[in-house]
Amino acid sequence: MHLPSEQDYIQQVSIDCVIFGYQETQLKVLVPKLAFKGDFWALPSGFILQQEGTDQAARRILEGRTGIKNIYLEQFRVFGDAGRTSAPFLERLIELNQESSREKQFNRKEFEWMTRRFISIGYYALVDINEVVPNKHDIDESIEWYNIKSLPTMIMDHNQIVEQALETLRSNLDKKLIAFNLLPETFTMMEVQQLYEAIFDKPFARNNFQKKILDLNVLERLEKKFTGAANKAPYLYRFLK
Amino acid sequence: MHLPSEQDYIQQVSIDCVIFGYQETQLKVLVPKLAFKGDFWALPSGFILQQEGTDQAARRILEGRTGIKNIYLEQFRVFGDAGRTSAPFLERLIELNQESSREKQFNRKEFEWMTRRFISIGYYALVDINEVVPNKHDIDESIEWYNIKSLPTMIMDHNQIVEQALETLRSNLDKKLIAFNLLPETFTMMEVQQLYEAIFDKPFARNNFQKKILDLNVLERLEKKFTGAANKAPYLYRFLK
Repeated sequence: MHLPSEQDYIQQVSIDCVIFGYQETQLKVLVPKLAFKGDFWALPSGFILQQEGTDQAARRILEGRTGIKNIYLEQFRVFGDAGRTSAPFLERLIELNQESSREKQFNRKEFEWMTRRFISIGYYALVDINEVVPNKHDIDESIEWYNIKSLPTMIMDHNQIVEQALETLRSNLDKKLIAFNLLPETFTMMEVQQLYEAIFDKPFARNNFQKKILDLNVLERLEKKFTGAANKAPYLYRFLK
Repeated sequence: MHLPSEQDYIQQVSIDCVIFGYQETQLKVLVPKLAFKGDFWALPSGFILQQEGTDQAARRILEGRTGIKNIYLEQFRVFGDAGRTSAPFLERLIELNQESSREKQFNRKEFEWMTRRFISIGYYALVDINEVVPNKHDIDESIEWYNIKSLPTMIMDHNQIVEQALETLRSNLDKKLIAFNLLPETFTMMEVQQLYEAIFDKPFARNNFQKKILDLNVLERLEKKFTGAANKAPYLYRFLK
């Protein structure tokens, strides 16, 4: 197993990524599960190389997980409590996996630096879920999209990191018009509304919502979507970048 | 001169603070000037002790500069470009001060760790300027409130850090109702408007502005302010926490 080595990275700083996708009226988050006994889920994470910027590091981590190069991302908060460390989680992981053949692959000394206190820089990313090819790493058993309402319990403070990311996403949605990053290139107005409803976890009144979105003047109206029933076919829209 | 020593702190991470105050219709920022040849201004900054959280570190730095314990502060952005280092500034400082008696106080080895790449966590603070007793450190010549429109050129990316802080302040102002942290306990409606005008650097229409602020339902109306001309005296208000 390849572990990142201490001297390549800025010490005691990590990056945690909340990757949001949207599918079948559900807001989802991409979460890997570790290939060890103990059911450990953890956000896509990584460290910052000495010669790369923090945003660059986040892009590298996100590209490695999604296959997408120009991903929409935002640095939203630093998680820097004094007691923030993965040591208890790693101790538990080792304890539960002592018997396993994987145990041989652990060299305590080699990853001791990772058990120190870590300040984490939180990023969230918005992707068109259809464009993502989720990529699990060597140490992962799986990587899946989970409905944000039924996320597994993750290690450390990762569930709180998702909550904070969602809060920031909500508060930035109108201001920065970023919701369209979660949709495919063309979409109906009903699909925009369902997306907003999934993000805010509440219904919106159809007429008001449509008026509000159209008044933003950021959508181009295209042909009608073919549904079979021509007279009721909704218009398709595209976001004007 | 006392320099912080390497092993007490998280490596390659610093905190930079933008302290906003408001006085005589001007938005101001508290900036120390270093007591060395070369006219160096730098934001109040510091490092994070191993045993303190990032917010705690920011509070310590802010209290040290303002004398205020329960300061309103917000962590707003990380500045993490790969090339972000104070090395050129420190080289220049040493070069310009070689002749000075202070030179003896420098031990290159002792502060070499500070010349590495640093990731900075930006915090901004809002204070009632009348409550602040600006405190200069040993290495400062002065510490002054500067109008944000005529800030001195500071070291590194500190002027951009102020710009980013101002941008975040503007975008949070209505959402979080934080402007009142910049005012004394009681104020007139005109004073609120002048404060908003200073922050946004543009005028607001009086009637609309008053209605918007009163509709927030966060102000308590007190007695009239005594101005000598009783019939024109404006009401005083207080923010309901």
